[in-house]
Amino acid sequence: MGKVIANASMSLDGFIAFEDDDIGDLFEWYDNGDVEIVNEGELPPFHVTRQSADYWNSWVGSLGVLVVGRELFDVTDGWHGRHPIGTPIVVLTHEPPRDWSYPGSEDFTFVTEGIAAAIATAKEIAGDRDVGLAAGTIAGQALDAGLVDEVAIDLVPVVMGSGKRYFGDAGPARLGDPTAIVQGRRVLHLRYPVERG
Amino acid sequence: MGKVIANASMSLDGFIAFEDDDIGDLFEWYDNGDVEIVNEGELPPFHVTRQSADYWNSWVGSLGVLVVGRELFDVTDGWHGRHPIGTPIVVLTHEPPRDWSYPGSEDFTFVTEGIAAAIATAKEIAGDRDVGLAAGTIAGQALDAGLVDEVAIDLVPVVMGSGKRYFGDAGPARLGDPTAIVQGRRVLHLRYPVERG
Repeated sequence: MGKVIANASMSLDGFIAFEDDDIGDLFEWYDNGDVEIVNEGELPPFHVTRQSADYWNSWVGSLGVLVVGRELFDVTDGWHGRHPIGTPIVVLTHEPPRDWSYPGSEDFTFVTEGIAAAIATAKEIAGDRDVGLAAGTIAGQALDAGLVDEVAIDLVPVVMGSGKRYFGDAGPARLGDPTAIVQGRRVLHLRYPVERG
Repeated sequence: MGKVIANASMSLDGFIAFEDDDIGDLFEWYDNGDVEIVNEGELPPFHVTRQSADYWNSWVGSLGVLVVGRELFDVTDGWHGRHPIGTPIVVLTHEPPRDWSYPGSEDFTFVTEGIAAAIATAKEIAGDRDVGLAAGTIAGQALDAGLVDEVAIDLVPVVMGSGKRYFGDAGPARLGDPTAIVQGRRVLHLRYPVERG
């Protein structure tokens, strides 16, 4: 059985976006290096440092599915049916979208019964591979429910001051020491195990 | 001229204490190792890992003065006249305390004219040495005023969920990549330069 791993780029003060979903300089590290990363979706390739590329390939290579919230789905219009990392997607939502269809949209599963059901569905899809979990409200719900195994943070050297937080209002929770510390350019990749109470 | 360096232990979600000043597990790393660190004040020695001790000694060895806010001064009762790291202290306050006196209290300077004046006073006292700046509201005021040269974060693997933030409501601000990354036990010591606009 794979692990459930929350993931996002985060500012030093804990934000993954401003309140209006502007991400400021958080994604600068996705395009400040020499190593090309091919997007599986419609976006062009991006270019990261060798350190970030190795970390990225290891992370994406382990994933079998990604769980996202309805907000992120709407903001991206479901990546027009194909997420950049190319895995199936589970969307936690109150009501599935009507008339949403693109080539690839058959790989999207909409779950309405809450975060535990979304993660259970994701685990079925992922099999032995890991379940990626987008940061934000749903990652907070999963953390509070004891459903997160690891926390991956791409820590970016900016102070945002306000915005949307990695785990929303969830916590307190105790994690272990980082199992990965990888310095890229304008990013520090960190991976933490969650301690079980 | 020395640098102005903000400093605190911080949770992964950006908090330096809960709202009631309880620090939860943030200071666990100060007492989970074999290497003794002598307190200059009345507190007993603490014991950290070799990695944390080396980082700590380098940090404290560079300091000539520490700037703190009135709240921290009151919570600790001014460390009874002698701060654990043994440097002179500048306290930013609206009104200096009356009848506050301990052996050593002559090393405390109370500044009422705001953060810029407090840091100017601290730099005079520090000479060529660095000025330490306690995180919280005053560090945020200094950051917004362009008065912080470096940010030192002892990043602790806990999610607190709510509390007092390292820079209060200050920001946005842009920092450089970390110049120090030192892994202790239940702490990751990080040091960032602040980029000037």
